[in-house]
Amino acid sequence: MLAEIHEQPDALRRLVASAGALAEVAEHARANGKTLVRLVAHGSSDNAASFGVYAFGVLPGWTALRDSISLTVYSHAPLDMSASIVIALSQSGQTRDVVDYARRARAAGAFTVAVTNDDRSELADEAEAVVPLVAGEERAVAATKTYTNTVAALALLAAHASGRGAEYEDAVRRVADLLEDVLPALETQAVELALSFAFVGRMFVIGRGVELATARETALKLLETCRVAAEPLTATAFAHGPVAALDALFPVWAIAAHDENLEAVREAAQRARAAGAGVVATGPAGAALGDVSYLLATPDAGQPLLSPLLSVVPGQLFAYALARAKGLDADHPHGLSKITRAS
Amino acid sequence: MLAEIHEQPDALRRLVASAGALAEVAEHARANGKTLVRLVAHGSSDNAASFGVYAFGVLPGWTALRDSISLTVYSHAPLDMSASIVIALSQSGQTRDVVDYARRARAAGAFTVAVTNDDRSELADEAEAVVPLVAGEERAVAATKTYTNTVAALALLAAHASGRGAEYEDAVRRVADLLEDVLPALETQAVELALSFAFVGRMFVIGRGVELATARETALKLLETCRVAAEPLTATAFAHGPVAALDALFPVWAIAAHDENLEAVREAAQRARAAGAGVVATGPAGAALGDVSYLLATPDAGQPLLSPLLSVVPGQLFAYALARAKGLDADHPHGLSKITRAS
Repeated sequence: MLAEIHEQPDALRRLVASAGALAEVAEHARANGKTLVRLVAHGSSDNAASFGVYAFGVLPGWTALRDSISLTVYSHAPLDMSASIVIALSQSGQTRDVVDYARRARAAGAFTVAVTNDDRSELADEAEAVVPLVAGEERAVAATKTYTNTVAALALLAAHASGRGAEYEDAVRRVADLLEDVLPALETQAVELALSFAFVGRMFVIGRGVELATARETALKLLETCRVAAEPLTATAFAHGPVAALDALFPVWAIAAHDENLEAVREAAQRARAAGAGVVATGPAGAALGDVSYLLATPDAGQPLLSPLLSVVPGQLFAYALARAKGLDADHPHGLSKITRAS
Repeated sequence: MLAEIHEQPDALRRLVASAGALAEVAEHARANGKTLVRLVAHGSSDNAASFGVYAFGVLPGWTALRDSISLTVYSHAPLDMSASIVIALSQSGQTRDVVDYARRARAAGAFTVAVTNDDRSELADEAEAVVPLVAGEERAVAATKTYTNTVAALALLAAHASGRGAEYEDAVRRVADLLEDVLPALETQAVELALSFAFVGRMFVIGRGVELATARETALKLLETCRVAAEPLTATAFAHGPVAALDALFPVWAIAAHDENLEAVREAAQRARAAGAGVVATGPAGAALGDVSYLLATPDAGQPLLSPLLSVVPGQLFAYALARAKGLDADHPHGLSKITRAS
């Protein structure tokens, strides 16, 4: 897992180098009026889909939804998909119900695209178009480089759909360089922080806007590798109930970017501090959250939309370090396998 | 809160008696091609929106999404809403960003509908059409009767949109009678169960399909009133990571209906049991989950889609009873207010 975290800059560069496939998919969707974006995925890929909802909304102004798989695959809802592009996200390309969804959606008239790390997988066969993640083989159960490459693929798809593909390809390249520069320092900080979290059993992870994806992915890493019951929440949802469950034994991980969501995240962090909870601040605006227990700031991504490619890395490194601090095997978490054949 | 739980059968009957407004809204949407359903809400209303995604998909075959509020209100994404119906759900009708969203969506060409318990609220003013929840004043911070009436309103909207309004109105009336019959026994069982949960700090709540809404709402009740860090999950998401965090101190609440999702929920419950976790089974198919620690079964709703009107009630009663067992004030949870003016 640690090696794969460090492979992320190169994986991002490979994705940009092969971005022709992304440009073609975006152009086909636009030319054919397939602009209702149905994202289907589980686990880390579904967390990346949360990012896609924002990327397609902000860039081309396309409505994107994390579609219900069970509604189509199990309940056979008679949905009209003629104006839809389906983006099926699966690292392995073997997730059973994502493959089934893609088959049904294609029959219902959707333009189906597989975004997968295995371009010879069943999902790649079922879809009309394939976007290879080119992340290289991922062996740890907890996804890292396939997650960031999925986020980057969605950003580039949305950028090409809005005629800004070249601009975003350059920006992803710069993010890869930034990430390479900052990784060693972040790793040191994550190890230091993990020592004081060895007995934490539950956490909230707060993000908003594009960083909601980061919050979801950070929480999943903590669940998978450290057995921490980490729940991801938007800053708003946090204020609608969970804040009442806080106490000094319930730390909060807050991800902040310099955008229109900063104030809400800052308010959530302050409420957590007021309840006696420890707060770990990350993201490019982590330092703007005020009085926090620990800061793991990440650099500005240049393009605000690409911030999640950097701000998820402290969570990945912390999850790995915390697993070690707890004596757990981060590479082979108890009870999980790499390919979940959802049924 | 307890009084309002018991008012739910009458509140449902009042809603059916005033269902003319729902029929008109559905007809207007259908006649004007406004069939992309954007549900916007926070908290319990957003949990009801999860139900709406299924109801509109299964009945008229309309694509419904829990839309991102921040994308429209804060990020100003240039979304095309000309084929959309916006259903803004807010008990108080005062939730700041839901009102803002409704205003922007109306300007962007959407047909906007307020579903609210206060038909003279700001949200009701902003929307083109108003569906009054007629639940009667709700005084407890934790929503109960406004939640079930919101679920029923969405079911009736979807039913009218598919030409099955009268059939579903009858069915909701029958559910109200069933609920009235079963409430006393469920209350007794919930009190008994709560005694052994007094020291539980975290739980998972599992549902799928229409019962995902129930899982989300049950978890929120536990968070709000009992300070239990309860995380709602689909049965599939549960298998994609959280199962690794389970142990004997981490009980699972599982909601099962007799539908195409039963097998996945049963498998999740069995994995929880195998990990040593206690399992509480609820819903009409609770007894079909096999070896569980406690069963709080609810009657069949007649129409499978209406099952969540009954299966949420054990969670409401349990949250109330557990708050009492913990010495907490369920009616006035620490740190929460009835109207959250999301910013």
